[in-house]
Order: sequence, then C-alpha cells, then structure tokens
Amino acid sequence: MALPTPLHGVIPPVCTPLGPRGEVDTDSLTRLVGHLLDGGVHGLFALGSTSEVAYLTDDQRATALETVVKAAGGRVPVLAGAIDTTTPRVLDHARTAADLGADALVSTAPFYTRTHPREIADHFRRLRSTVGLPLFAYDIPMAVHTALPPSLVAELAADGTLAGLKDSSGDEGGLRRLLVRLGGRTGRRTGPAPGFSVLTGSELTVDAALLAGADGVVPGLGNVDPAGYVRLYDAALAGDWERAAAEQERLVALFAITDAGPESEMGRSSSALGSFKAALHLLGVLARGTTAFPQRPLSEESVREVGRRLTAAGLPPVR
Amino acid sequence: MALPTPLHGVIPPVCTPLGPRGEVDTDSLTRLVGHLLDGGVHGLFALGSTSEVAYLTDDQRATALETVVKAAGGRVPVLAGAIDTTTPRVLDHARTAADLGADALVSTAPFYTRTHPREIADHFRRLRSTVGLPLFAYDIPMAVHTALPPSLVAELAADGTLAGLKDSSGDEGGLRRLLVRLGGRTGRRTGPAPGFSVLTGSELTVDAALLAGADGVVPGLGNVDPAGYVRLYDAALAGDWERAAAEQERLVALFAITDAGPESEMGRSSSALGSFKAALHLLGVLARGTTAFPQRPLSEESVREVGRRLTAAGLPPVR
Amino acid sequence: MALPTPLHGVIPPVCTPLGPRGEVDTDSLTRLVGHLLDGGVHGLFALGSTSEVAYLTDDQRATALETVVKAAGGRVPVLAGAIDTTTPRVLDHARTAADLGADALVSTAPFYTRTHPREIADHFRRLRSTVGLPLFAYDIPMAVHTALPPSLVAELAADGTLAGLKDSSGDEGGLRRLLVRLGGRTGRRTGPAPGFSVLTGSELTVDAALLAGADGVVPGLGNVDPAGYVRLYDAALAGDWERAAAEQERLVALFAITDAGPESEMGRSSSALGSFKAALHLLGVLARGTTAFPQRPLSEESVREVGRRLTAAGLPPVR
Amino acid sequence: MALPTPLHGVIPPVCTPLGPRGEVDTDSLTRLVGHLLDGGVHGLFALGSTSEVAYLTDDQRATALETVVKAAGGRVPVLAGAIDTTTPRVLDHARTAADLGADALVSTAPFYTRTHPREIADHFRRLRSTVGLPLFAYDIPMAVHTALPPSLVAELAADGTLAGLKDSSGDEGGLRRLLVRLGGRTGRRTGPAPGFSVLTGSELTVDAALLAGADGVVPGLGNVDPAGYVRLYDAALAGDWERAAAEQERLVALFAITDAGPESEMGRSSSALGSFKAALHLLGVLARGTTAFPQRPLSEESVREVGRRLTAAGLPPVR
Repeated sequence: MALPTPLHGVIPPVCTPLGPRGEVDTDSLTRLVGHLLDGGVHGLFALGSTSEVAYLTDDQRATALETVVKAAGGRVPVLAGAIDTTTPRVLDHARTAADLGADALVSTAPFYTRTHPREIADHFRRLRSTVGLPLFAYDIPMAVHTALPPSLVAELAADGTLAGLKDSSGDEGGLRRLLVRLGGRTGRRTGPAPGFSVLTGSELTVDAALLAGADGVVPGLGNVDPAGYVRLYDAALAGDWERAAAEQERLVALFAITDAGPESEMGRSSSALGSFKAALHLLGVLARGTTAFPQRPLSEESVREVGRRLTAAGLPPVR
Repeated sequence: MALPTPLHGVIPPVCTPLGPRGEVDTDSLTRLVGHLLDGGVHGLFALGSTSEVAYLTDDQRATALETVVKAAGGRVPVLAGAIDTTTPRVLDHARTAADLGADALVSTAPFYTRTHPREIADHFRRLRSTVGLPLFAYDIPMAVHTALPPSLVAELAADGTLAGLKDSSGDEGGLRRLLVRLGGRTGRRTGPAPGFSVLTGSELTVDAALLAGADGVVPGLGNVDPAGYVRLYDAALAGDWERAAAEQERLVALFAITDAGPESEMGRSSSALGSFKAALHLLGVLARGTTAFPQRPLSEESVREVGRRLTAAGLPPVR
Repeated sequence: MALPTPLHGVIPPVCTPLGPRGEVDTDSLTRLVGHLLDGGVHGLFALGSTSEVAYLTDDQRATALETVVKAAGGRVPVLAGAIDTTTPRVLDHARTAADLGADALVSTAPFYTRTHPREIADHFRRLRSTVGLPLFAYDIPMAVHTALPPSLVAELAADGTLAGLKDSSGDEGGLRRLLVRLGGRTGRRTGPAPGFSVLTGSELTVDAALLAGADGVVPGLGNVDPAGYVRLYDAALAGDWERAAAEQERLVALFAITDAGPESEMGRSSSALGSFKAALHLLGVLARGTTAFPQRPLSEESVREVGRRLTAAGLPPVR
Repeated sequence: MALPTPLHGVIPPVCTPLGPRGEVDTDSLTRLVGHLLDGGVHGLFALGSTSEVAYLTDDQRATALETVVKAAGGRVPVLAGAIDTTTPRVLDHARTAADLGADALVSTAPFYTRTHPREIADHFRRLRSTVGLPLFAYDIPMAVHTALPPSLVAELAADGTLAGLKDSSGDEGGLRRLLVRLGGRTGRRTGPAPGFSVLTGSELTVDAALLAGADGVVPGLGNVDPAGYVRLYDAALAGDWERAAAEQERLVALFAITDAGPESEMGRSSSALGSFKAALHLLGVLARGTTAFPQRPLSEESVREVGRRLTAAGLPPVR
C-alpha cells in the first residue's frame, strides 16, 4: 500500500514473540498485531531494534515480517527494518523485505565500520535507487555509534532519497533544529521537503516531539500500551497539550518496567525487551515472555514487578 | 536575598565581557545585567559555563561575580557557579561566592578524576553542610564527562541537600523520568521534594521542558534575547503551548548564530560563546565581542553572519 | 587440520580482493594467499575486519573463505571470522565456515545491542558447544563498542571455551595484565590455560607484545609485507630484540600508507583498507585496489603516495 | 637546575601524603622523597594526577611542591604539574611553581571546555612564552577527554615549544608512530627535535616503551617500588630485554594492588591512589594512607590485600 505523505501517527516497533526453542511464535505475533491495531495504531514497524532484529537469523526475520504483513492485512502500512553492517548486506535484507510485502524500508548508518558522512549519504542513495520502496533513515547512535548529521538528513530529505527519519538519537535539541530547518511546525508542508516524515523513537518525550512538529512516534512501550500512545497523539493533534502531557506522564511511569532486570545481572536491552515481553505475556497477548539468546531472562520477582507497574498504569494483568 | 521556592523562570547564565587585555569589562557586564533585567528575567547565573568560568582566574571570577551582584541590586537572585575539579577546590570558590553576596551555589560533579556516584553524593553533601547557601547540582556531562544518576538527584532532593538541578545533560527522556519521580507536572508540590527546582539548560527545547513540568530555564542564548525567553516562559505559564512553541522556533532559528565559526578553525565552545558575545556587541550591549584565551575569535565574515541572523530574528544590530 | 597449541606466529587477516562489479576476485585472492605463504606466515585469518567482512554478503563470505581454504591447501591453518550482531546470527556463519573447511572460528562480543558480560560469556560458550571448532575471542572495541573484560577472557581460557584471543583492544596495559595472569612470559605453559594463544592485532607494537609473551600477531599490514612481520617474529623468537624493534620501526613507517586518504573525504577504515589494497595492486598481487561499497576509493594522488611509501620501505611497486 | 637533554630515566609522580584533617603531611612527603631518591630515581614529578593535584587547594599545592623541591635538594630535577581548566588559570599555577623552584612544568590540554587543536597549540605556546621554564605536554585523555594529536606534538617539539611529552594516552601504537617520526630508536638525536624527551606514563608496558625508544617513565606505582622501576630502566639501557621484561612482570603483578577497592563502592582513581598510599603506609614511608575527599578510603580488608600483594612482590610490610 502507498504510504500516507507524510507518514504520521503511532507506529510501534513490533516485538517478535519467541517459542520455547527460540523460534518465532507466529500465533503470538499475529495476536500482538491485533492488539496494536485494536489500539488504533497508524502503522507497524517490523524488524526494528525492539523486535530484537539483531538477534534474529535471516529465516526468523523473514517469518516475522511475513507474519506482520499478513496480520496487518493492508489496514496500516508496514515498515521493515533492513538492519545490517553495510550497504551490500542491507541490500540483501531490503530485497527480501520488498518481496515479503513491506511498504517501506528503515535503515541505519553502517556500523561495525567507521564510515564517513559522505559514505553514509552514498549508502542511503544506493539503497533508495536499488530497491523500489520509500526509505526511512534510522538515527540510533546508541546502537550504531554514529549519529546522522542533521545537515545530511536535510540534504537527503530535500533530494527525495529519504521519505522520513526515525529519530532515536536522544538528541532532542538536534531534532528541534532539524524540524525548524524543514519549515517548523506550521511551515513544514511548504518547506524544502514537504512530504518528509519525522518520527521520534523517544517514547518518554512524545508530547514534546509532537509540540515541536514531529509527525509521529515509534514507541517500544507502544507494544504494551498502544491505546495510550494513540490517546497521546490524538490529544496533541487536537491541541490539548495538557491532556497529552498527562497521558505522557502515565506512560513515563509505566516505562519503569524496563528497570525490572537488575543491572548487575543483565544488559540494559535485555531488561527493557524482557519487560515489554513479560508485560505482553501478563496481558494475555503473548504465550510467553521469552527473549532471544544470549539475553538473560527476567527473574520471577522482576516479572512480578512488571505486573505491579502494569496495574498501577491501569493495565491489570490477566495472568 | 531568599530564593523563591522553587526557583523558577528565566535565569540566564550571564556572559563575562572582556576588555582588550582579557580583563573583565565591568562596564559592559553592568550593561549586560541591565539588558537581562530589562528583558524580565527572574534570576541570574554568574560563573557558569557560558560565563567562560573555566577561562577565568580566581581574581576574574571574583570581579565578575561582584559586578553581577551589584548590578542585580537585589532585584533578582544571583546564583554563582563554584566550578572546579573536586570538593576541596570547589569549597574555596563557594566560600568566596558566599562572601561576595551570591544567593545560591551551583556545582558540578567532580571532573578530571573518575568519581563514584557515592563519592559524588558525599561531594554535594559536604558542600551543602559547609557553606550556608542553597545548592544546585549542575548536570553537564559534556563538560565533566559524568552524568548525575537520576536516583542520586532524587535522593539529594529528598534529603534537602539540593535546592534544585540545572540540567544540561541533553537527556530529555531522563529529565522527564526525574520530573515524574518528583511528582509530575501537577503533583510536584506534594511530592517528596516539594520546593525542589528543576531548571533546564537545553535552550532549544524549553517549551517541551516546561510542558513536562520544569520550573525554569538557564538559556545561554538568553543573554542575547532575554525577552524572547521570558515570552516563551509566560506563554507556557498561561498554558498557551502553541505560542510557546512558536517563540521557541524563533529562538531555535536564532541559535544558528552558534554555527558561525567554522569547525575547521575553532572549537565548538569558541564558536558558540563567540557568537553570543558578537551578538551582544552588535546589539550595543558589550563594548567588544572578545572571548577568553585560547579561544579563537570569530572572523569578520562570521560576525556578519551573526548580524544577519539577529536581523532575521527581529533583533537588528545597532552597529 | 589441527591447530598448533598454542597457535603462534604471523597470521595475517587476509584482504578480500574485489572485481569491477564488487564481486570477490578469486584469482587475486589465490595470488594473495600465495604471496602470504611465500612470506612465511604461520596461519591465515579469513573474514576478519581487514577482509572487509562487514561489507561482504553471505555469498561473498563463502566464496572468500572457500578460496582461502583451497589456496592454503592445508599448509597453514585457516581461521574464519564469524562476525555478526548476536549468537543466533553468528552461529549461522560459524556452521557455514565449518562446512567450508575452516580450522578455527573467530568471534567478537555481540554488537548493535548492549550486552552484559555474563551474556557475552554465554555467547562464547554457546558458540563453542554448538560448533566443533576451536574458538578465538576477538576483542575489538573500536568496532563492537564493548571491551572484553580480562577476567572474562581468563575465565573462558581456563574452562576451555576459548582456544585463544585476538586482541585488537589497543589496551596494551590490559593485555600485559592478562599475559601475567596466564603465567607470564616463561610460565605460560604451566599456567591455568597452558595451550591458550594470545595474538595481538596491534601491528605497530608487535615487538612489545612478543616481549610481553604474546604468541603471535594478526597484522593487517602483513598483507602488504608478510615477510617483514615474519622477520620480526623470528628475531623475537631468537631473543634479538634490537633487530625485532628495527624491523618494527620499518613497518611503522610503512604503516603511514593508511593515512593516504584524506580524513575530509573518507572514513578512516576506507583509507586504511584502500591503502592495503592499493599497495597490493602496485606490488602486482591484486588485479585492482577496489574496496567495497560504500567506502570511497583512494584518489590517484593518494595511490601515488602509497607507492612512494612502499619504495621507502624497500618494497618498490612493479606497476 | 638545568634539565638533562633529553630528560630520561624514572621520574615518579610523587604522591601527596595527607594528615588527619586532610592537610599536606610534609614530614611524610619528605620521607617519601627520600624513599624515591634512595630507589635511584632520575627526577620527581610533583602535582601530577597521582599526587591528587585535582583534589588539592592552591595552598596545598604550594605546600606540596615546596616540600618536594626542598627534599630533592637539587639532586634530581623537579617537574611540577600546572593543572587547570584553561590557559589563564594554568598560568597562575605555572608562575607559582616557577617561584617555588620547579625545574620544569607539565600541562595538559584544556579541559571542561571543548578546545580545537589549533587552540591547544596556542595554549602550549602561550605557557612556554610566558613562563621561563621547560614545558612538557601531558597527554592524558582519560582525565581531560581530549587526546593530543601526534602531529601537534611533533610540531611543538620541532619548534621548541615543548621539551617533552608525558604520554598517558594509553595509545601505544600512536606513541610508537610518534617515536618513529622523531627519528626512531637510534636516530632520535639526529631527528627534527633532538633533545625532545618522551616519557611514558603507562607503568605496565615500560619495557615496551623503552624498546620503542622512549626516554623514560613516570610510573605511579614507582612511588611504591622506585628501585624496581630503576632496575627495569637499567636493564633496558643495558640491552638486557629479558631482564627488563621479567622486572616488568613483577611490577605488573604488584599493580594488582590498585584493584583492592571494590568497584561497587569507590571510583577507580580512589582505589588506585588509595592502594599506593596504603602500600606506602605499610612500608613505613607514610604516617597514614589517607586520600583526599571525596575519595572513599580503602576498607581494612582491602588494605590487608595490599599487604599480601606487597609481600608477594618481595616488599614485605613493616607494619
């Protein structure tokens, strides 16, 4: 399906439920997509960082994407991450994603290598010219250890290489400067890249990003509470910033589930992804909360803590 | 004078004008304080990073603080940075600042050394117990290369060690989590540290910080356009978030003056501080735009660029 | 073939020559292996960072490894990099490498994700228990942004998970501490992990690493001058440290070829890898100096500079 | 006294003993200088990082330097750290050090600020032209978060600004490249900066640095075992690299005292500095092992561990 121009709204990075042997649990994934669509989301982002894309084999990636596309059934667009170290490897993923029915691609700067900004520009241009799908740049320096220079994003927006940006830079000041450069809150549609979509991946400051003119949000926590993020988005769209901020505060409190796993025992990602999946299990959406190897599982006590936070946020566990 | 509880509003980090031989230009500094008070600011922060505190000798620091206190004349509170590598050295600055009439102190975590969070807590507790002034923690990892853990700030807020936080972490998500922990936008006054003041140093996202419940802002760019930040603050206070955001956008555009110095020739700080001072010179507030050694001066072309940006922001140069 | 215990000597990370359309140039690669064996190397490391593994598709990786194994013809052991973001993806590469005849595997800590040391230990243990080949840990924080804690390496050495370490940490002090922990220069064979092999990837300090008790070296520059590194190793083995240091100095001077590409135009990796390949082209080993996309090619002037450095190091170009 | 050209040998960064109220314990400091001179050291470096310079007030710095100069009594040169954020503040310290009889100055790049390499060059040039003492650059990115580019050091060596480099970069490859650039092991005296002195601050790889052509070492651990470092230096000077390496191994094992303080309770600096002082107390040199506030003290168990390590290294405690 054609993407809205610009793409906007709540577009969660869909978790990838796993079975007891680490295989993709397609039943749970289908239920999860249903849970998200019921929550009113405007798109789905498969194979992003929150989907544990870095832990999925090529076969598992294909299964996950296929399942999401099928479950979405054309009701909302499906973006697919094409995440790998450099252009030639990303291209292999991108072609597969196109074949499996993705509506757009999302790619980071190269990683593992040290890549010059001009080489990063070449990377995106090659992806765009080779695969016939709209392309989003995924700025996630925490994972790839390179930040996309705003001037580079603006250049690739203006020349049509990029359909949008998924900003997980954590640099809200830089994001604001980019938005102003693109025309500002009210001037975006007449700016140098009128259909360009800016999506924030910073799930704790969505009200702020929307106030600043972002088009939407890709919230990992949106797997757990898609309706909450949709309410936040709707309040912002209606200009009711007090309501948006109140909803954001509830979600910030809920985000504390990501601290459930103690730092002395597991990586920060394991704790965050484990807590999302534990919550989805407790809410009856996933059959189990298993995360991919070598991430350590949450302890029973940590899962109970997740349950308490869900209840406090008005999302009582069903098991 | 006693600080408002919590301290709130626009509290610019006052630039330190310099004369031809690098000495503190007290006439220009007095004019600058007048410019800020005329703009309606609610407090003044002397000897912060924007004041080039790291470049000022002890004598210069004393002269600058003395001048600011005298020019403020008790109309607004004066916060003083006590910035040095560790507690014993900071204490020397803190005592001097108290003697010179500062109303509160601002101190970072230790730097140059690698300091444990428990040691950082001891640092702030010792400062508070030794010097009889309210104490603000200054979270500025870009300068000190240690971020203050939110749990540490919350602990020192709750036990009364800290009167507030000046957050220049650039981590807006972390700031949001802290604000929610303190009670959220509407619950702050009934939270665990009711009078605790959270001030953002992120001058590009002030509307967002205020929407999130911050009490005020310490904007370097507020030296140049104090009235603009006061308008932004007043709009936020009135709940007119659209107007706040529009004002913020104008200020974001103006902030481009900090790019005036080319990265190939000078440090990022030199360019930013040089542009603030060049602007204040062009606006007739400072006698000259000199920055402290070894910062390189802006070129004439860069100064012209600053002038063009001022004009575009509605602040036409007077020379 | 069975690995020597411990693996020792000069084991270059073999470059992957590319054809005009980016395909693996197997003729040139066969010639390169011949060049290395003629130089007297003791092993070959295929699919390492210097092989541009991060730029090679799965098919290209297979072609490159197959070609190296065939060209080596059992004369020296072939180590194969199994480089990917996390365990499940690394396992796919590891199984392929085993099928293609690799004699040992080399794997980094997970990257893209933030992984806890206990999870990193699980990662190596799973690799070792699943694939029946000796396993080397590849400590390369510059690429994966996690350093392997020495205590972790020592633990995995002692329990037999790891056959060795390829140390590209750049932390020579940490390496020295590890070597002393393993028993020191003379006590290694009676230490807690007698057959454990420590190979340095720091090609500029090989004499120092050997003096400290390292077993060998994996020098990127060894593609260009394998005989030089073998002479260095032999001098060290003979206890002639003055000769070893003199040879090292010649190689340090030659290493300046990696600066040939200007930083303003290309990434540091592109310049280094481009210079190795340009040198091999000038020496008549490779048909062309092409590097993988999106790395920028060296300019003609940069290639001439490489030629001058080769001549100065006693390796005059043949074209 | 005039410095040897180049300055060479073992030049420990002298610890600053403290009394019960945190004051400089001049008696213990005098004994420490005696301990170092008895060990055969070739110079003394006062007010360096290991002296806790970052924790000493200006008065304490003066007392410490005065005491070291007096105790040295002209038998070996005394270098003095002039450590502060930027040039104007460093100049104040430098003038005081000159007045107190220092024979040379040691200064880092500016810190707290973000300073351009050209500005760093100006910084060193201004220091050299203003204060009439030989100047050493102190490359310590761990503390100041800027590494000195080798090209900058080479430029300031060639033009006579710098008398030498104290390299605590931890980048042994970069150090090797610099040494080769200066002329290499045997060609140094005929190179572009014949009297330039390169001193490594990496106490775990001193044999390697001397093999590479460094002139000497500034070992923190040399406070505890000056004679050991002198033996290492003498062995290297005699070309007996096996003996040098064996001595280095003993010192590497002894260095494990720096791990005595648990990471969960204190900063890494606190543990290292605390262990040096605890060892000097156990050896009867210092009256107590007190470190400066806010560093946490070693526990009794940690001190016992230091004692065991001393005994194992052949330096049995006397109390």
